[in-house]
Amino acid sequence: MGLNTFLKIFLPKDRVFYQLFENVSELLVKMSIKLKEVVNEPDYEKRAKLIKEVEDFEHINDDYTHQIFTELGRNFITPFDREDIHYLATSLDDIADYMYSCAKKINFYRVDPTDIGIQKMAELIHQGCTQVHKAVTELRNMKNMRQITDALVAINSIENQGDDIFDMSIERLFATEPDAKEVIKKREIYQIMEVVTDKCEDAANVIESIIIKYA
Amino acid sequence: MGLNTFLKIFLPKDRVFYQLFENVSELLVKMSIKLKEVVNEPDYEKRAKLIKEVEDFEHINDDYTHQIFTELGRNFITPFDREDIHYLATSLDDIADYMYSCAKKINFYRVDPTDIGIQKMAELIHQGCTQVHKAVTELRNMKNMRQITDALVAINSIENQGDDIFDMSIERLFATEPDAKEVIKKREIYQIMEVVTDKCEDAANVIESIIIKYA
Amino acid sequence: MGLNTFLKIFLPKDRVFYQLFENVSELLVKMSIKLKEVVNEPDYEKRAKLIKEVEDFEHINDDYTHQIFTELGRNFITPFDREDIHYLATSLDDIADYMYSCAKKINFYRVDPTDIGIQKMAELIHQGCTQVHKAVTELRNMKNMRQITDALVAINSIENQGDDIFDMSIERLFATEPDAKEVIKKREIYQIMEVVTDKCEDAANVIESIIIKYA
Repeated sequence: MGLNTFLKIFLPKDRVFYQLFENVSELLVKMSIKLKEVVNEPDYEKRAKLIKEVEDFEHINDDYTHQIFTELGRNFITPFDREDIHYLATSLDDIADYMYSCAKKINFYRVDPTDIGIQKMAELIHQGCTQVHKAVTELRNMKNMRQITDALVAINSIENQGDDIFDMSIERLFATEPDAKEVIKKREIYQIMEVVTDKCEDAANVIESIIIKYA
Repeated sequence: MGLNTFLKIFLPKDRVFYQLFENVSELLVKMSIKLKEVVNEPDYEKRAKLIKEVEDFEHINDDYTHQIFTELGRNFITPFDREDIHYLATSLDDIADYMYSCAKKINFYRVDPTDIGIQKMAELIHQGCTQVHKAVTELRNMKNMRQITDALVAINSIENQGDDIFDMSIERLFATEPDAKEVIKKREIYQIMEVVTDKCEDAANVIESIIIKYA
Repeated sequence: MGLNTFLKIFLPKDRVFYQLFENVSELLVKMSIKLKEVVNEPDYEKRAKLIKEVEDFEHINDDYTHQIFTELGRNFITPFDREDIHYLATSLDDIADYMYSCAKKINFYRVDPTDIGIQKMAELIHQGCTQVHKAVTELRNMKNMRQITDALVAINSIENQGDDIFDMSIERLFATEPDAKEVIKKREIYQIMEVVTDKCEDAANVIESIIIKYA
């Protein structure tokens, strides 16, 4: 029996959404741990194996996201606004997509990821995913409002720190890298990593609008 | 009597949307054929004429899209969810915008489009638009579900192939083009073309969510 | 008593939205005047002070936008469609974000802003914000439909002029700037400024869809 079938038979309709969102956010944490391993691995071939694992996680995540949209199409009654489910699923999926894109481009561009800016960003992304997972998990009962709002505040702070690290990294890049082609490549890696923290904030904003309406 | 007036008088309200969406997707196919001509024309001036024709199509498309949004504002009852009509119109309009943007930038940057990556992308874009038109046309009766789902599967495969061609083209560009300014120009052309295949997939995702709800 | 509390006690629910949107669009005009000062200031340090003022405006704007979303979560009845309020708030917030981003990057990249393309763009952005403010202010009574539609037409024309200035600036940049790293920096400034005019058009499109439904 596939996971999807299991969910449909044994869980009340509302629970399906909570479960799927938790599956997604748990995977985001796993992906972010793997991304940290990628940017700490100096060897190209060993990195390639880790990147493949990020890709596998991303495919599983795609399946969960697809199930959320399928359930949204099937269910008339949903635990929170349909548009909020849509936005939350989209922003979580974006987090996974950009983490994978970042990992992939590091080897693709043959960029050395053992760079202080890239490594700090990977650490921030991991913190962001951990806080997103915490907030998503608390949605199910909405009893610990303090837990959710603490996570949302943390995500906002992480996004601001991401902006600062991005700015510092770009400034150093333009000042120290003489090869414009290398500038283009590294700048794209920094940009993608910064977008991951933006997408964590998008997810936080949807969760905030959900708890304002239902809490 | 203008087309818009004709549609309003002679067609039941629901039909207006089907007709307008079909007009748009038919134009996308025509634009994609013209885009293939653009990237196979080595002469700058002759290319300029073809690009002007792409621009004319794009303006007509803007009018149709505008009519869809006007009808959406006027009609309380719509053949499928208002938000789906909104998303579908937006994603089809994006396909047209990016095709025109691509054609325009080729001459603007004086990039030689007779490049294996650009030409393969143009062929893929044409296939994508053809499949989008097929899926949109079948929405009207929803009798041939197999036809629609085949088109959606094809669009997803085209988007994946677009990613691969993009990756290969960028890798070759960084490896072989010594002038960083040329790298910037060609990379932007590849990126825009890849976005067209993404937008075809966006349209496919909306169509999928429509048929899940109404089929 | 904070502004938010004042609004909630003394204004009927509908009015809150009009007032908040007017606060936002008025700030956009102020920000655009400050942005013009930034691009006309040749001195780095004096420019830094002006950029700080743009940043302060942007933070106030964030607060207003946050209040709009909070009110949207709290109020069941709204003066126009919930999704239109959502889109309008988002597009106005984007205008502020990109204006601040533009101002910030000028000093960050140490780009000389006394450049004909940048200065023309700043003037256009100011005109765009002025027209957006005019249209937003007229939403409250919807008596002067001509005033609103004139503003919307003007915004569309401004967005087209923005495209032209962008194209001319990029063409000159690639033709005259030998340093590819400088090309990357200035191109990003032009792009951000062009996005501001796009976001003005997004706001105009939402306002158009509002007046079609309610006028």
